[in-house]
Amino acid sequence: MDVVRLLAIRDTPLSVDEVMTAVADQAAGGTTVFVGTVRDHDHGKPVGALAYSAHPSAERELRRVAEKVAADFPVTALAAVHRIGELRLGDIAVIVAVAAAHRDEAFAASRRLIDDLKREVPIWKHQVFSDGTTEWVGAGE
Amino acid sequence: MDVVRLLAIRDTPLSVDEVMTAVADQAAGGTTVFVGTVRDHDHGKPVGALAYSAHPSAERELRRVAEKVAADFPVTALAAVHRIGELRLGDIAVIVAVAAAHRDEAFAASRRLIDDLKREVPIWKHQVFSDGTTEWVGAGE
Repeated sequence: MDVVRLLAIRDTPLSVDEVMTAVADQAAGGTTVFVGTVRDHDHGKPVGALAYSAHPSAERELRRVAEKVAADFPVTALAAVHRIGELRLGDIAVIVAVAAAHRDEAFAASRRLIDDLKREVPIWKHQVFSDGTTEWVGAGE
Repeated sequence: MDVVRLLAIRDTPLSVDEVMTAVADQAAGGTTVFVGTVRDHDHGKPVGALAYSAHPSAERELRRVAEKVAADFPVTALAAVHRIGELRLGDIAVIVAVAAAHRDEAFAASRRLIDDLKREVPIWKHQVFSDGTTEWVGAGE
């Protein structure tokens, strides 16, 4: 079975259960999941609303990043999903999960996966602060 | 609200949902979850059955480990649950989760939490291999 089990960029709510099910594997002893949620503050200012937009190449770049992690680490399964569109405080924006025989590999590969996704996949965040100011930022925090 | 949200050692199935709900916090931008499951092999041999046993001091030691992580890292919330008794292949044996404003802290604290839990909380694993041999090991992999 392919190591890359689930990749998606969607405008509907994300589910940790879906991602856990996608990477479930009896050869895995450890699964590390990172869940990125919409914080109530950024740069010390309260955040009121937020939207993510993806460039048309984002799905292709997500696959490239995921396949590189699958090739570079001895892992059993991985998954990465990103939400786009309008999100509310506390909503899940991104989930990555990696299953491996041991936790060293699961932690290292999931960290690489979220870091590369945030740096290399063209998804941008538009934040509206409670004071009415706005900003566009790369998906990286 | 206390940073340490949920700690348990139980003989019933564990739930990732329960742990995610326990650490949910609108001040958090990132949550890292580690899920340890029963692998179908160890030391290259197929595993047939497995049980975990806890020393009576295990709950107290789990609290000590969790409170040290909460004190040492700037995190918003954390949780740790361990299952004991008989488990089957694929069953969840342990879950730790840490929520923080940023992912650096979430990854570092969750790694410390699972490492210290495995090293310092007296929970042992009894493995029965498919060839009939058995072994007792510390909960550390």
